[in-house]
Amino acid sequence: MATTDSTAEGHALKFDDWSKGLILTVRSPDRVGIVAGLAASIQSAGGNIVELDQHTDVVEGDFGCRIEVAGSVDALELDRRLKDIQSSLSTIYTLTPVARRRSRVVVLCSSTLHCPSDLIARSAIGQLDCDVVALVSDQTTARELAERYGVPFTHLPIREDRAEQERQLGEVLESLEPDLIVLARYMRVLPAWLVSHYEQRIINIHHSFLPAFIGSNPYARAHERGVKIIGATAHYVTSELDGGPIIAQDVVHLSHRDDVADMTRRGADIERSVLASAIRLHLEQRVIVFGSRTCVFD
Amino acid sequence: MATTDSTAEGHALKFDDWSKGLILTVRSPDRVGIVAGLAASIQSAGGNIVELDQHTDVVEGDFGCRIEVAGSVDALELDRRLKDIQSSLSTIYTLTPVARRRSRVVVLCSSTLHCPSDLIARSAIGQLDCDVVALVSDQTTARELAERYGVPFTHLPIREDRAEQERQLGEVLESLEPDLIVLARYMRVLPAWLVSHYEQRIINIHHSFLPAFIGSNPYARAHERGVKIIGATAHYVTSELDGGPIIAQDVVHLSHRDDVADMTRRGADIERSVLASAIRLHLEQRVIVFGSRTCVFD
Amino acid sequence: MATTDSTAEGHALKFDDWSKGLILTVRSPDRVGIVAGLAASIQSAGGNIVELDQHTDVVEGDFGCRIEVAGSVDALELDRRLKDIQSSLSTIYTLTPVARRRSRVVVLCSSTLHCPSDLIARSAIGQLDCDVVALVSDQTTARELAERYGVPFTHLPIREDRAEQERQLGEVLESLEPDLIVLARYMRVLPAWLVSHYEQRIINIHHSFLPAFIGSNPYARAHERGVKIIGATAHYVTSELDGGPIIAQDVVHLSHRDDVADMTRRGADIERSVLASAIRLHLEQRVIVFGSRTCVFD
Amino acid sequence: MATTDSTAEGHALKFDDWSKGLILTVRSPDRVGIVAGLAASIQSAGGNIVELDQHTDVVEGDFGCRIEVAGSVDALELDRRLKDIQSSLSTIYTLTPVARRRSRVVVLCSSTLHCPSDLIARSAIGQLDCDVVALVSDQTTARELAERYGVPFTHLPIREDRAEQERQLGEVLESLEPDLIVLARYMRVLPAWLVSHYEQRIINIHHSFLPAFIGSNPYARAHERGVKIIGATAHYVTSELDGGPIIAQDVVHLSHRDDVADMTRRGADIERSVLASAIRLHLEQRVIVFGSRTCVFD
Repeated sequence: MATTDSTAEGHALKFDDWSKGLILTVRSPDRVGIVAGLAASIQSAGGNIVELDQHTDVVEGDFGCRIEVAGSVDALELDRRLKDIQSSLSTIYTLTPVARRRSRVVVLCSSTLHCPSDLIARSAIGQLDCDVVALVSDQTTARELAERYGVPFTHLPIREDRAEQERQLGEVLESLEPDLIVLARYMRVLPAWLVSHYEQRIINIHHSFLPAFIGSNPYARAHERGVKIIGATAHYVTSELDGGPIIAQDVVHLSHRDDVADMTRRGADIERSVLASAIRLHLEQRVIVFGSRTCVFD
Repeated sequence: MATTDSTAEGHALKFDDWSKGLILTVRSPDRVGIVAGLAASIQSAGGNIVELDQHTDVVEGDFGCRIEVAGSVDALELDRRLKDIQSSLSTIYTLTPVARRRSRVVVLCSSTLHCPSDLIARSAIGQLDCDVVALVSDQTTARELAERYGVPFTHLPIREDRAEQERQLGEVLESLEPDLIVLARYMRVLPAWLVSHYEQRIINIHHSFLPAFIGSNPYARAHERGVKIIGATAHYVTSELDGGPIIAQDVVHLSHRDDVADMTRRGADIERSVLASAIRLHLEQRVIVFGSRTCVFD
Repeated sequence: MATTDSTAEGHALKFDDWSKGLILTVRSPDRVGIVAGLAASIQSAGGNIVELDQHTDVVEGDFGCRIEVAGSVDALELDRRLKDIQSSLSTIYTLTPVARRRSRVVVLCSSTLHCPSDLIARSAIGQLDCDVVALVSDQTTARELAERYGVPFTHLPIREDRAEQERQLGEVLESLEPDLIVLARYMRVLPAWLVSHYEQRIINIHHSFLPAFIGSNPYARAHERGVKIIGATAHYVTSELDGGPIIAQDVVHLSHRDDVADMTRRGADIERSVLASAIRLHLEQRVIVFGSRTCVFD
Repeated sequence: MATTDSTAEGHALKFDDWSKGLILTVRSPDRVGIVAGLAASIQSAGGNIVELDQHTDVVEGDFGCRIEVAGSVDALELDRRLKDIQSSLSTIYTLTPVARRRSRVVVLCSSTLHCPSDLIARSAIGQLDCDVVALVSDQTTARELAERYGVPFTHLPIREDRAEQERQLGEVLESLEPDLIVLARYMRVLPAWLVSHYEQRIINIHHSFLPAFIGSNPYARAHERGVKIIGATAHYVTSELDGGPIIAQDVVHLSHRDDVADMTRRGADIERSVLASAIRLHLEQRVIVFGSRTCVFD
């Protein structure tokens, strides 16, 4: 993505095509006057704000906002002014042109196919604004699906030497230059170094209403407990199992007639829609992370 | 309720008014021919089945059904035939005339009033088919509410001698002859002997989507975790904290703007509707318990 | 489907494989003793009822039920007994073995692809228990999709001679021997003779919450009206536009930020899930039509 | 409310207590730099923006925003600056201190009581931040409810002289000085002059999912149509029947077992929650009307 990630090391602003407007996201410690500063900067760069969502967590003192700017903006000028704001506050901002290149998404899966199938089909018919550039799996079940859509398939089978396999996975991912990695019912835990390398760029779908039923076999455990609703949760991956910041959740009602197979089937529907929704929110820069929580500006 | 609870000790069938039809519920080990036997019995007693819901848990071998019978039924004849079926199978059945007396409900609460307020108001305007015959509380907050509606209020304050207080509560309940006891955000755990005495006749509302956030302060913990949905759960009370068979659950979506106070307010709405719904299901004999799960024939 | 449709002309019971149990559906004028007669017939044929759903519309006097029978059933014996019941009542029943062949589904579409894409993908990964045997369209947009999955594609372009095109469509459908025809955002109205020929075997998905926004462009009209929820409706096709018996509906909440494009995108998600759900309900014999309404035994 | 309604005639800013922060809402034709101007004004008046929601309808060119400002604000200074902005743009703004007096709500009802009962009960236990200052009805059914809670009750029976009754209603309302009038299942149409006098200050609850089933008996018509979902809609009242800007909608799923009485009962639950939700949104200044649509900044 032609994104300006203003980290300590600085960044290179890629001036693709700013004539169609841009999206600005800002995360910062709260301070009086931030909005005024941002709005004045946008005005002076010739932009018109058409959507502004701002939230301050007054307990934690975190400020976040997402601004859609229409019209032809002088992005260099805006970037210079944002840097001035940044130098006085420890602000993190991103600048993304509306007319940006399509995001590169890598999907990891195992043998359960409804999520990867759904993502690839959505992308193919233009209902998810990204390219699925590769399907990577520890199983071979998904190969046929990949081939139907001409998506490159990489099989990384489970080996005795786990560290070696993880190193291979890291290399494969590196070479794919993903904007986003999606764990679409991928049944293996990623190593901490990989999670850390792609911080807030890995989204997992968990087939329960977290924090209920963390870990494996959530549907069987939900049936055992006799719940009347099951859920699905999409979240950023962190080093804590099923513990990362939640982006989206949804649920479906059950009856006593639904056994584990029915729950699995009905849950699949919400897993797919929740995952697709979370990916869209991420790609449209609508998610800002405050510690263990997300602001979702939808 | 003019109910026939066919337990080992037998029962006394109270012949109120069977001319408006009846509801028959049956729980039994599964056996070929049960439905045929029940339907033949109803036919021979002059009844017409207008609604029949039946479910067999094929894994556990549990059979349950609920039958609505219209027309004037010879209830004595039906009861005799059901006893014959019962003698060969360890069936538990209930027979309830449609034209039954209103159920007596006792509501226990502490200082959070939206649930008791809602139940009493619904009952007063005819939207919950029962009489709230008493409000019992360890606090005095609910006294004004009880007085508005002319509902007797009993204050059982917390004492040092907990066993003594529990004994008092038991006596109060005994004297009220409740068909159903509702824990409407009652903040104290009932003693096991009381729970056992009113088995499947005590419904609790828990302000979370169980099994997430068992115990106290679920909204604060949900906010801490950053969930995007909160829930409410109505369940029968058993000796296990928040572990009894679930009757009804519902959820509401949140945004990052919802702090703990907002969650408490929004959760209150579903607590009320889930609790009222579970009470209605129970009163209409729509809930049959299979071990730790319920069949809800709605 | 190896189904016994007991119409006036009689039928041929196809004895595929009844050893895995069967599903019996019955529609009839209400009469005392029907359930007893059905249950006794099943018992005498050696079957065990594991799920029975029955509903009587007491206003209209319509009786409907769906029964799942486990075990090896003597289907000839059961069929003979059902015929006896039928001769005294104008009952319509279907008998379907659980171990039946997969249903043949023909999908009609125009240029909007999310519904056909979803159905074909679900079928391919085993999440919809049917074969999509053909994709028929008045456009060519869906050809690539059909080819990805090896589904035969038939293009029936719009012609000046409409009657001729409809005759062609009729021939194509006839040759495909469909158990079910699905209008997956097919933008043309079927002729009455075709609808009548496939009565209760054509399901349409309409992209609104019927009866709101009957006809074309429902999302644009929903936006114009400023609604906060949009919906999707799957129904059997009758001669009345968007007026057939409703099988399933669902909705999604909107905000003021959702323009027509957003509504179209968000609506697509529920169109797909509602349509897939209605097809599943139909294929599992869970839908019984009472005049303009459906009983859905789910 | 200590609100500044900047209409053509100007207004008097009532300086109650601005030390706890304020809420600013702005509606305006879209123009570059509005947000910058507003944010700079707030900064110069000593306020800190903690929540900002802004939406531009780019098709219509309408700009709307709602800003929560924390801290002690120099309201006179802010008002002066807002007037400057207003003089160049035809902006309409409201300034409301967070520490404002409770809003005065008048509830109109007929003989259906679940909505007025719910509103009064919520207000009494602190779950709706307003005072129900009067219950006005064309029937006497609600008198007992009003008396339970000590709410003044006015009976305005239907007369032959309709204009006279409407004049009386106008007088009663005038004397009550309502901030908001709620039609809680009030079965009579208000005269145009009354609607116009309280523009965007009258909220109606309609017991259907508008625009489906406009007018009377929506549940009976929904049953006739065989819908699987029913809804409730809260909207501002305009001269067009059930046609005003929609504030909130919600739905509940049905089954074929739900007859009109069940639909009425189940619908009542969402009518109550949708109405309470719309009132809260209105009272918290979260609703901005753009023509026939609303922005709801929740």
